[in-house]
Parts: sequence; structure tokens; C-alpha cells
Amino acid sequence: MSRPRLRLVEVGPRDGLQTAGAAVSTDAKVAFVDALSLSGLREIETGAFVSPKAVPEMADSAQVFSRIKRKPGVLYSALVPNDKGLDAALAAGADKIAIFTAASETFNKKNINASIAESIDRFKTVVPAAQSKKLPVRAYVSTAFYCPYEGKIKPEAVVAVIKTLESMSVDEYSIGDTIGRASPDDVRRLLDVLLKAVPVENIFLHFHDTYGMAVANALTAWTEYGVSGFDASTGGVGGCPYAPGASGNVAMEDLVFAFHASGGDTGVDVRALQAAARGLSSALGRPLPSRLGKIAL
Amino acid sequence: MSRPRLRLVEVGPRDGLQTAGAAVSTDAKVAFVDALSLSGLREIETGAFVSPKAVPEMADSAQVFSRIKRKPGVLYSALVPNDKGLDAALAAGADKIAIFTAASETFNKKNINASIAESIDRFKTVVPAAQSKKLPVRAYVSTAFYCPYEGKIKPEAVVAVIKTLESMSVDEYSIGDTIGRASPDDVRRLLDVLLKAVPVENIFLHFHDTYGMAVANALTAWTEYGVSGFDASTGGVGGCPYAPGASGNVAMEDLVFAFHASGGDTGVDVRALQAAARGLSSALGRPLPSRLGKIAL
Repeated sequence: MSRPRLRLVEVGPRDGLQTAGAAVSTDAKVAFVDALSLSGLREIETGAFVSPKAVPEMADSAQVFSRIKRKPGVLYSALVPNDKGLDAALAAGADKIAIFTAASETFNKKNINASIAESIDRFKTVVPAAQSKKLPVRAYVSTAFYCPYEGKIKPEAVVAVIKTLESMSVDEYSIGDTIGRASPDDVRRLLDVLLKAVPVENIFLHFHDTYGMAVANALTAWTEYGVSGFDASTGGVGGCPYAPGASGNVAMEDLVFAFHASGGDTGVDVRALQAAARGLSSALGRPLPSRLGKIAL
Repeated sequence: MSRPRLRLVEVGPRDGLQTAGAAVSTDAKVAFVDALSLSGLREIETGAFVSPKAVPEMADSAQVFSRIKRKPGVLYSALVPNDKGLDAALAAGADKIAIFTAASETFNKKNINASIAESIDRFKTVVPAAQSKKLPVRAYVSTAFYCPYEGKIKPEAVVAVIKTLESMSVDEYSIGDTIGRASPDDVRRLLDVLLKAVPVENIFLHFHDTYGMAVANALTAWTEYGVSGFDASTGGVGGCPYAPGASGNVAMEDLVFAFHASGGDTGVDVRALQAAARGLSSALGRPLPSRLGKIAL
């Protein structure tokens, strides 16, 4: 299997910080995004236009968008839950929109009090509205490997969700191992089925490092299946709401280092990511879980 | 490639704690080894009989050996640098002996002020003396992938060292990624050459997680090459003297979890390892870098 050029999506400012506590200042978020913009990353999920009651950490996303220094060639994206969120994201000047659902019915019910079908239905007007403004749309599919309530999720359930999203002309899918429980064999089992149904270039894999297998999973998907799209969070910031204190998203700098060590081309400077992580660690007042955050290169 | 039953060697009490600072009490070490003995592990490197000036952390190894509760079926091994160390290890009742050299001339010179040949020569009398008492002998080959001074190490250099050790009838080899810099591709490059020269059952791989690739490396060696011997350190305790603050040996609990998640048989109870790590973390007064140490199973 050839090893294609990597397409990396930074999700730290949104997925990483949405569980960090509301104490992260707007200044710190802007500084984090600006530092990430210097790294060579081409896409940074910068905030979310969701209920500030549900996710107080994202209440200042409009200010973050208005204050960051946009680097030409970088997409600054936003997560939205509905039409109202889309309007706010458009007003803030988001370059790309992300919507979300899950592969587990129970998770969806508990997380957003909707069935999978109902949750997707909420986005029926969002997707064409975003695309009419030339904004691409990604869809997150959470709990695509394991659900904290249902356990192992069948690959066919993931494909069914993606087929529905495909019928809405969503541009790409971010397949999430929400609780970080997947192993390389789980990745193989899903990709064996998924890549028969969906073009590989529309797939991004979104690993959490809760159990320490995220780098192994990403290398497996890339070297054995030619998947080139991966999400990660600089510093490894974030967490798992079902495992307090657990490691968060796989750290972007760890993933980039592993890809480079495997002959991969990411276009990203690991030292610039380390610098962004150092700044965020200072702002949060705690060490972050990335391995590369602990050493000098 | 079939996935053989795993043979895991716990190196935390020695390799993990030898750089932890001399403040770790004998009580804490004994408690750590005793907790590890309950996990199903079959081999625990319990201490080192080396110069207390060079490695003050290991000065109480004789007391540790005298106070642990030995579990039948578990080997309690000791690292020794020479005949005098062997005598002390035999007096302490060690079940197995470990000697050490490196694949990098510069590292060996700086680390122990000897060439590789000289360092191996020191063990010419140690190996037969240990084996005459029915004690098996393992040899550590450090810097087998990267050297902090020389950079990338050729697989042929590793094979040459092992061939010399083989001529001395050493029982097994622990091939160390001392600075934790190896990628799965580096592992493949070494094993492609090494397994043509040395029986796979005599090989143990010893990964550090400095750069976050240790779990990926171990899974690669096991699933693609059928290597079944791996060293690890519960809690991920340890460090890299060349990268202060860096992560240490790959965490045994992370490795065991990844093997189990890949259908592997280790005979080890992850929860018992987590308990051992919690005790050690309390004794050290700091969190340890393992991923599994941060979550409940």
C-alpha cells in the first residue's frame, strides 16, 4: 500500500478545549490558534456555535474568530448544531462547517437526546445552506468503534450512517473513536467494510489516546489502507467525558512525528506544534499529555 | 503471521527506578515488586548490583531481594556489571542474571567508558558462572535503533553484537530503543535482518515511549514478525537520561491492554498492574505517564 500525503485537521481549539473548563480565556484561545497557524497545518477547527449553557467553553467562539490572524491557505472551521449555529458561524466568517452525529443509538440519545435519524435530520437544511455559500461540510460520526453504553459498534452501523450523510451531499466524514478504545484490529475491521462503500479521500479518522493505541491505529490506517485524513489535537488536549482524567485526542505533534518517522509528508513543523502546545499548557496551568510535549527536538 | 503467546518482562523496579532519584524508599520498592507479583507477570527485574556511586537508586537491591514475597513461578532477576555484581546477585538469591552492552561504540564509550568488545569481555566469566548455578542470562543491547551521539544504528551492527554474545552462550537478548526514537519502519528494518541471524524466541524488544511510538512498535513486531518477547515498565516509570522529563519505558499496562485488544494472551491482569502503578505513583509523589494509569477499567 502506498503512503499518501497526509491531510491533518487540528481539532484542539474545539474538541480539545470544549471539555477544558470555561476558565480558558479568549486570549489564550486566540494565541493557541495563531500559534497553530504558523505550523503549516491547513485546517484548524477554531470553535463551535452551540448552546453556551451546554458547552460554556465555546461561548466566546465569535470573539475567537474575530481576533485570530488568518493565514492564507488555512481553513478555519466551526462546529454547528443547527441552522442558528450555522448563521452564527457564517457571521463569524468560518471557512468550513462541521456537523455531528453518532453510530450508536444509545450514545446519541444520551448525548443529544435524539435518535441517529433525528440528529441527522436537524442538518438537512444546514448542509445545503453552508454549501450554497461555498463552504465545505464535514460530518463527525462519534462512537464509530465503541460506545460507552453499547460496547462494540458494528462496521455496518457506521456505513449506514455515512450513507445517509452521503445522500445529503456531505463532503467528508470524520470517524471518531470517542472513548479511545479501538485497537489496530478494530480499525482494520471497520476499514475493510467502510472503504468498499465510501471513497477513501472522503474519510478522516479521529482517534483519542485514552488507552494509548491512537498512534498505532493511525499508522495502521495509513500504511495498510492508504487513509490520509486524520484529526488530532496539539498537546493532546481534551479528554473523554466517560473517563475523567483520561488522555484526550491523540496529540498532533506525536502523530506528525510518527508520520515523518515513517516517511510521511505532512507539511507541518513539529517544533511549531510544540511551541503552540507550550503556550496552551501555560494558559491551562497544567502539563498536557503529548509525548513530544515533554522533550526538545 | 500468527500471533504467539506473549512473554513479558517487567523492568520497572530496575530500569524504571534507576533514574527515579535515590529518594524511592526500600519499602516502596518492595511494595511495588510485591504488587507486580500478583499480576500474573512471570519475570520481574528486581534490582541491580552495580556501583552505588554510579547508580545510588539501586544501592538497596540486596534488601529489596531479601524482603520481597516471592511468588512461585515468577523469576526475580538482577542486572550485574561484572563478577563482583554476580556474586552479590547470587547471594541475594536472584533467579536470573542480566548483563549489558550497546550497539553504538560512542554510546558505550560515554556510558561505561569501554568499547563494545571490551564491555562484552567483562562478561566472559560472568555468563558461565551464572549458568553453572542454573541461572539463565539475558543481555541488554542498548541503542539498537538510534544513538544519541551517532544517530541511526545499522541493523548489521546489532547483529554483530548479538553474534558475539551468542558465542558466549547468552540465553536471550533484549534489544533496546534506548532513546525511544524508533518507528515501526525502523523495527521492520532491524527485524528483517536480525531474524535471519537469531532465533526469534531468543529476542525481546525493549521500547521506550519517548516519542509515543512504543505501542505501535510492539504491535508491529508481534503481528508482522511473530516476536513474542517484550520488556515494559508498569506505570511507564523511567526516563531517558538524554531527554530530561521524557516518558520512560513503555508502560506495561498500556502494552498488555493493546495486546489483549489484539487477541493476545499475556497471562497478565491489567487491573493488578494499574494497582501496582497507583502504589508506585503515591510513593514517588507524582503521576506516571501510562495511559491506562489515568482511567478505571
